[in-house]
Amino acid sequence: MIKIIARRLVREECVDEYLRLTGELVAASQAEPGCVTYTLNRCMENPRQFAFIEIWKDQQAIEAHNASEHFTRIVPQLGKLLEIGYPVEHYMEVTP
Amino acid sequence: MIKIIARRLVREECVDEYLRLTGELVAASQAEPGCVTYTLNRCMENPRQFAFIEIWKDQQAIEAHNASEHFTRIVPQLGKLLEIGYPVEHYMEVTP
Repeated sequence: MIKIIARRLVREECVDEYLRLTGELVAASQAEPGCVTYTLNRCMENPRQFAFIEIWKDQQAIEAHNASEHFTRIVPQLGKLLEIGYPVEHYMEVTP
Repeated sequence: MIKIIARRLVREECVDEYLRLTGELVAASQAEPGCVTYTLNRCMENPRQFAFIEIWKDQQAIEAHNASEHFTRIVPQLGKLLEIGYPVEHYMEVTP
């Protein structure tokens, strides 16, 4: 499994639109067969900051997600609403 | 529920010690009654970077965690191994 953390700072006047568009993206992504977990989360320290926390079955599942209709249509629209799109980070869980 | 993302950049020569100490911290934290999920994750773009991804029942559970024997004993030791301890971020999941 591969986890993704994608932190985003949204422009103040764009937060409502961001929430509307991400609602559709989250629902469609959660329905993908290779998706284990896909959530959008809002920062309590700064309500304009969001983080996608995602878990995917494998690299192939991430590639299918990145090529999906909902991703290629919605993510470019989200990009226009951002003040900062921090680099997307991929993680492997450390087993104790 | 409250999620925590805590990203840490560990000094090159300290990674083995970091993994040893976090193994104990992760196991003890997962056993806390207010803990929903507590994982340490290693960044694929930079193997010296780690992220704790945590889910807690509520704020009271986080306070109990921060006051626990394992937290107050191990976290200061981990601090000495860090190059950068990015600010700990608290999140609420956005429900579509």
